[in-house]
Amino acid sequence: MRLSNFFLNTLKEKPSEAQVISHQLMLRSGMIKQNIAGIYTWLPIGLIVLRKIANIVRKNMNKYGMIELLMPCIQSIDLWKESGRGEYCGKETLKILDRHDNELIFSPTCEELITDIFRSSIKSYKSLPKILYNIQWKFRDEIRPRFGVLRCREFLMKDAYSFDIDKESAEKTYNLVYDAYYSTFKEIGVKVVPVRADNGAIGGDMSHEFHVIAENGESNIFYDKAFLGEVSVDSARKLYAAAEEKHTETNNTDIVSSKGIEVGHIFNFGTKYSESMKSFVSDSTGSSIAPEMGSYGIGVSRMVAAIIEASHDEKGIIWPKSVAPFKFSLINIHPQDESVTKFADELYEKMLNLNIEVLYDDTKERAGSKFATHDLIGIPYHIIVGKEKFAENLIELKDRKTQKSKIVSVENFDNIIRSDNIEF
Amino acid sequence: MRLSNFFLNTLKEKPSEAQVISHQLMLRSGMIKQNIAGIYTWLPIGLIVLRKIANIVRKNMNKYGMIELLMPCIQSIDLWKESGRGEYCGKETLKILDRHDNELIFSPTCEELITDIFRSSIKSYKSLPKILYNIQWKFRDEIRPRFGVLRCREFLMKDAYSFDIDKESAEKTYNLVYDAYYSTFKEIGVKVVPVRADNGAIGGDMSHEFHVIAENGESNIFYDKAFLGEVSVDSARKLYAAAEEKHTETNNTDIVSSKGIEVGHIFNFGTKYSESMKSFVSDSTGSSIAPEMGSYGIGVSRMVAAIIEASHDEKGIIWPKSVAPFKFSLINIHPQDESVTKFADELYEKMLNLNIEVLYDDTKERAGSKFATHDLIGIPYHIIVGKEKFAENLIELKDRKTQKSKIVSVENFDNIIRSDNIEF
Repeated sequence: MRLSNFFLNTLKEKPSEAQVISHQLMLRSGMIKQNIAGIYTWLPIGLIVLRKIANIVRKNMNKYGMIELLMPCIQSIDLWKESGRGEYCGKETLKILDRHDNELIFSPTCEELITDIFRSSIKSYKSLPKILYNIQWKFRDEIRPRFGVLRCREFLMKDAYSFDIDKESAEKTYNLVYDAYYSTFKEIGVKVVPVRADNGAIGGDMSHEFHVIAENGESNIFYDKAFLGEVSVDSARKLYAAAEEKHTETNNTDIVSSKGIEVGHIFNFGTKYSESMKSFVSDSTGSSIAPEMGSYGIGVSRMVAAIIEASHDEKGIIWPKSVAPFKFSLINIHPQDESVTKFADELYEKMLNLNIEVLYDDTKERAGSKFATHDLIGIPYHIIVGKEKFAENLIELKDRKTQKSKIVSVENFDNIIRSDNIEF
Repeated sequence: MRLSNFFLNTLKEKPSEAQVISHQLMLRSGMIKQNIAGIYTWLPIGLIVLRKIANIVRKNMNKYGMIELLMPCIQSIDLWKESGRGEYCGKETLKILDRHDNELIFSPTCEELITDIFRSSIKSYKSLPKILYNIQWKFRDEIRPRFGVLRCREFLMKDAYSFDIDKESAEKTYNLVYDAYYSTFKEIGVKVVPVRADNGAIGGDMSHEFHVIAENGESNIFYDKAFLGEVSVDSARKLYAAAEEKHTETNNTDIVSSKGIEVGHIFNFGTKYSESMKSFVSDSTGSSIAPEMGSYGIGVSRMVAAIIEASHDEKGIIWPKSVAPFKFSLINIHPQDESVTKFADELYEKMLNLNIEVLYDDTKERAGSKFATHDLIGIPYHIIVGKEKFAENLIELKDRKTQKSKIVSVENFDNIIRSDNIEF
């Protein structure tokens, strides 16, 4: 993408309305624009990151055998009355009357809707277990939306729902989703701690929250310090990790505490919805039974902010490579120089032909301003082209995170742009 | 995907609530489920098709230099009051009060919102022309939702908006979008006629509708019969094609008439929104001027139904290959036979390893029922594995559309599954 054709407005100064660093950096790097309180447009560079995260989530859910569908934003409140959760539709649920005075809501979650879909389709234990999910916009009418997309009103969520014939199978499914989440967050490239948690209003007795460790987190979490290193999924299950309400004081000096941002939550809640909504299947003896259910969320849009909270410096965002909006910035610091520009154009065309993700800064800005912009938006590698180096057939390569740079010969360009990890 | 793990419920009988063929076939093939009037869940096989269409649209918009962002579902009505379209928010617009009694709407279209985004970001003619688009769920509170996703309430739309410095540039942009649309529909694989149309309430004086020719269309369109053959985009522009309100009676026997389903609509409406919302940029002389604007829609969800209206037979859907939910059905007609099943499993694994899209029917249904199901859901090629042919190292290959089949040796399997067009 040529920056001159793109739609990217960065800000030099910290916006006064933003209290937390992720909100500041998302506004400064032109990722989002608030339309009204807690409701945002995802601007082009923000949308690329959002979609990359959604795609990593989707890939991992599919890998673990979950099946994707797509439920609508607008639901009838009738199903909620049927499940007995009508009263849960409090002030945080956006209520709507249509032209025929039907009571609708903007989905905050879909336990009822999925149970209705399930009961109209699945009649036998032979079709179980089944995990269905969707990635869709939800709405929660926060009384005081704040912290940008961390606590906003319209947000993108991956919500999955499982159906099992008995408790033993449900526990297996729960553990499978735990693994899928672990694999997802690992691929995204942020450190996430799965802590035991309360089930709360949703009911049931198995629950974990997945937290990104970050100073600006709203939750206190307690966990074995082993989580600060590399932990494989089987060890993670055995290590101590608890949300505040599940934590018991201990003298164990391996247990540390920090702030966390919740990016995932998994629940098993038994037959609460299948019973109340009469969603029965026949078991192997022909008896009608209510399946064991669970629900499993990942906050896709809030994940964007959580990553920034966990990965930034004073210059701006440091994107993990898996979700960076582009892999390379190609920065022409002498755009007035015809031969340098011709050379930069050629490098850009070569990268496009190889399907390498690149943001080509072909604008007339000063070099210093360009460096600041590309550090701010956090693209992992910067290729810098200017007239002195060009004369010697050299380019400069910079690592966004370490700020280390090296001078390389143009002959090595193909190898560099193809490599996944560039050493400095 | 193994059918036994998938979530697919097909119906043998025509559902009584569905009047038009696309609605019948979408329900029968398990693509959608109505939740309440005009609001649907996209079930797994339906979602795959919906996303394929969205991705073809996205690819073509990007190819023509349009920039993607994502606007929220919920807007404030204030911007509509500013543009003077507040009164347009009639009964078809879903109106909502939030907990603080702010007046919100579920987006039916985004001219106001994009103009607000534009005016806060773009200040100079140097950034023009600019075409921004998004693919997002919209809502129109139809008084009588009907015909499935052809006239539903919550629908997926690609809406693009352009900004140009003068009328001449705006006309170029308009023609570029016309080309992008032509290219999009061509890649989807349905015959679409671009007819001259009225601008209606949106204002302005350049407008085309893009119609799929289909018996169940709600519009009458008039066009040169050359459109029934292959027409390249430059010839299309010169041929006669008009919506009913733009048609003038003629003796020209080359002009034919038929029903059409509108799947796209492009408008140029000048400075209506940029003037009223004071969205000004500076021109080359430093004067403040209101950019010329246009808006451009593609009905992504209704496109699914339009394709079916144009491409089906008495057995079910005939998907164009570009948007088929899977390229192949792999049908084991003797699932009780261990060696046949082992063989079919191996073919399936091979296809997965080669990233070939395949729905593997590993269920215990009878052969006849399986054939009917795979004809109904319309996957282009069927690979049929059974014990007689297996004994001779042969498989049967069937073309969904022509119903022709041929027997091929297993040695040719790799070549067959890799080829884009299989001859019968």
